[in-house]
Amino acid sequence: MSLNLFNELSGVLDKSQVFEPHASSPYLHDSTESRGMKGKADLIVLPGTLEEVQKVVAYAYDHDLPMTLRGGGTGYAGGAVPEGGLVICLEKMNKVCSVDPLQWRLQVEAGVSTRRVQTVCRENGLLYPPDPGAAEQSQIGGNLATNAGGPHTFKYGSTGKWVTGVEAVTGWGEKVSFGGGFRKDVAGLDLGSLLVGSEGTLGVITRVHLRAMPALEKRYPVVGWYKSLREGCEALDYVRASGIQPAVLEYLDEGCIKWTQLSGAMEGSQFMLLTEADGTGEEAWAGRGILIEAVSEGALRVDAPLEEVAIADLWRWREGVGLGLAARWGGKSSEDIVVPLDRVEEAIRRIPEIGLKYGLEACSFGHAGDGNLHATFLLDFNDPDALASSQEAAEELFAMAIEMEGSVSGEHGIGKVKNGQLQHQWNPASVRLAQEVKKTFDPKGLFNPGKKLA
Amino acid sequence: MSLNLFNELSGVLDKSQVFEPHASSPYLHDSTESRGMKGKADLIVLPGTLEEVQKVVAYAYDHDLPMTLRGGGTGYAGGAVPEGGLVICLEKMNKVCSVDPLQWRLQVEAGVSTRRVQTVCRENGLLYPPDPGAAEQSQIGGNLATNAGGPHTFKYGSTGKWVTGVEAVTGWGEKVSFGGGFRKDVAGLDLGSLLVGSEGTLGVITRVHLRAMPALEKRYPVVGWYKSLREGCEALDYVRASGIQPAVLEYLDEGCIKWTQLSGAMEGSQFMLLTEADGTGEEAWAGRGILIEAVSEGALRVDAPLEEVAIADLWRWREGVGLGLAARWGGKSSEDIVVPLDRVEEAIRRIPEIGLKYGLEACSFGHAGDGNLHATFLLDFNDPDALASSQEAAEELFAMAIEMEGSVSGEHGIGKVKNGQLQHQWNPASVRLAQEVKKTFDPKGLFNPGKKLA
Repeated sequence: MSLNLFNELSGVLDKSQVFEPHASSPYLHDSTESRGMKGKADLIVLPGTLEEVQKVVAYAYDHDLPMTLRGGGTGYAGGAVPEGGLVICLEKMNKVCSVDPLQWRLQVEAGVSTRRVQTVCRENGLLYPPDPGAAEQSQIGGNLATNAGGPHTFKYGSTGKWVTGVEAVTGWGEKVSFGGGFRKDVAGLDLGSLLVGSEGTLGVITRVHLRAMPALEKRYPVVGWYKSLREGCEALDYVRASGIQPAVLEYLDEGCIKWTQLSGAMEGSQFMLLTEADGTGEEAWAGRGILIEAVSEGALRVDAPLEEVAIADLWRWREGVGLGLAARWGGKSSEDIVVPLDRVEEAIRRIPEIGLKYGLEACSFGHAGDGNLHATFLLDFNDPDALASSQEAAEELFAMAIEMEGSVSGEHGIGKVKNGQLQHQWNPASVRLAQEVKKTFDPKGLFNPGKKLA
Repeated sequence: MSLNLFNELSGVLDKSQVFEPHASSPYLHDSTESRGMKGKADLIVLPGTLEEVQKVVAYAYDHDLPMTLRGGGTGYAGGAVPEGGLVICLEKMNKVCSVDPLQWRLQVEAGVSTRRVQTVCRENGLLYPPDPGAAEQSQIGGNLATNAGGPHTFKYGSTGKWVTGVEAVTGWGEKVSFGGGFRKDVAGLDLGSLLVGSEGTLGVITRVHLRAMPALEKRYPVVGWYKSLREGCEALDYVRASGIQPAVLEYLDEGCIKWTQLSGAMEGSQFMLLTEADGTGEEAWAGRGILIEAVSEGALRVDAPLEEVAIADLWRWREGVGLGLAARWGGKSSEDIVVPLDRVEEAIRRIPEIGLKYGLEACSFGHAGDGNLHATFLLDFNDPDALASSQEAAEELFAMAIEMEGSVSGEHGIGKVKNGQLQHQWNPASVRLAQEVKKTFDPKGLFNPGKKLA
């Protein structure tokens, strides 16, 4: 980094908003740090307004500086790992601009945390359903950039389904804006949906209009434990055939149950299904009955806690699975493949086999109802052989997802981790088109270079 | 049209799939015919397979022939009105490729009618919620091309929310494909969502993967009649504050009630609200009670029919409103503006005022819950003055939608009718970007030229 660059950019912004990263700066990595992924950057910049983002982008565009866009840094694909140039952090753009309880909507800046969106909605009698992990740290801009999901995506859809408007800054600092605080729009091409899931490769998302819905009165989880994958997947079918739309349909496989050793797990069970009925008190209660019946088919045990505390415990426990798995050997690498629902059982069975082939313990958990499996390889990241094996295993995993006509990513995105996979999933014409569309937003290729490559 | 073109194209396809349109051919117009919109075309082509679409598009691209893409021809914006060259009709591509009841999904060719999608789902215990008008004629490809909505969009979203995969043919006959028969995907840029709402300007949609949901057991409509717009809009607020998500939230204004003279309308009432509770039997029943309470606030009368026949009658009646209005003077022009929910009352009040200014009776009805108002000017299309006035009135209507920070279209699209409006709704950078994105799909500008212009 030249002193010149620092001086010039701190002229564009305030000095306090521009700094050089030290060697262990948190701005140089995301959740893939544990896998050894760490980047480098000349400067970290923290714009506080749309106009400041425009100035920084215009400057970067004039000077051919790569820009890595950073939300909460909770990504699992290395999408926020910089490769030189600027890291543009949205954390200072953290205003909730407006909340309209009666219109079921809110408008927030990109740096507002997911939790704050959820909380603001709850305080106004509303529900914002998307519930990706790490909601305290993750930011709504990053949620859009990866079209973040979560357990409740099964009923309510991923982040993009709740977006009605997006403001962003593209090449040369131009502000673009699509949709707004209204609920339907087919006036222009849907470039807002294109920004969703773009992983920072098209521009800087600065502001978002979100829909919300009336808060739910009740949520009742129902958990089934099964003696094998087969019985568990039969129960999955029973739930889908029950005639109702559960709010979530999550699972843990044999390895997850065995290795996490979380209290509350049923010993000897090889498959756990977690589902939930929600709605008004009556609806949720009726749904709970239907789900208990569906889940009970072939189950060793069914848990259907009623107390708020027990329900909160259950969810905390579910959220602890990732950490529990990492604790076994000190690390894990998780990939979020998607398969069609009729291939879920086969995919869950093959994941540990793939691990075994590369000498790794492997298991999976996640969003059974969406066919979105968090395939997890357990390893000690200090063991370079294991790390290399986990990468080979991941390649085989992605190949399986594509062979099953699924996707290499349902939530995390491509980032750096999955570069090169899309060419196996899409035909060359589709890949070429995506590359050309990228160029229309970012003619110089300065937004998040080296990420989401086909 | 040169004989040469006919011979060459009937070499590409079978002779029976290529013909010259006669002067009164139905392939030269859509629902805007009544407004005098009629196009011209050299040839009508009816490809039956993806490969045939590819051949036709490749031929057209090689010979610089404009292509107008045609679904069921039920559009209200002139999007399927040709301006020379080829009309490519998808009606022969009408196969339901697969239905998987347990996976809540189906795969259909673009020419399958909306009604058939709905019926196939129902026969398999599923619900495909989008319910645009003219479901018998409209085709799923066209539904995607306009992101078609309908009353149930309020709870369940427009067509695009139910699409998990799109196959299309773009410039030079290249097949592209995004997503598939799986439920989550963030592997590539979301070009599938971009095709949704593109009104045939990006390529030919040939095949679609759709999500569905478990069929609903019950649907109970609740109708409130109010003495004025004010009371009606207060009731709208009560419904939105009731804590539940109704399936629909439709309205008729004073003019609609007065002029349609449909039996069943409450004389003297100036506003009607139609809402619906749905779900399992218990859910729907509980929801019905909540909605009756909310709708009753300030109502002159509340109807909440329970018999299937009475419920079907009510919906048939609601669907007849458009025809009832057209009957008054022989014609009507309806535009589908969108306003933020807090501007709905004001917009409904101003629509007849705009009509009055241009000497036209005007009223509105439609999707109050989405702020998507079908503003309707009543006129005799044989009166050229009235027709010109209705166009001026529509301009003022669009200006109002934009002034209210809404959209000029929520369902119909831009087509020919609203050409030039987007430049008032979007800033120049956003418009330019959309034009550049269009070029990546259609470098020669041959897909639906003269439509969806900013």
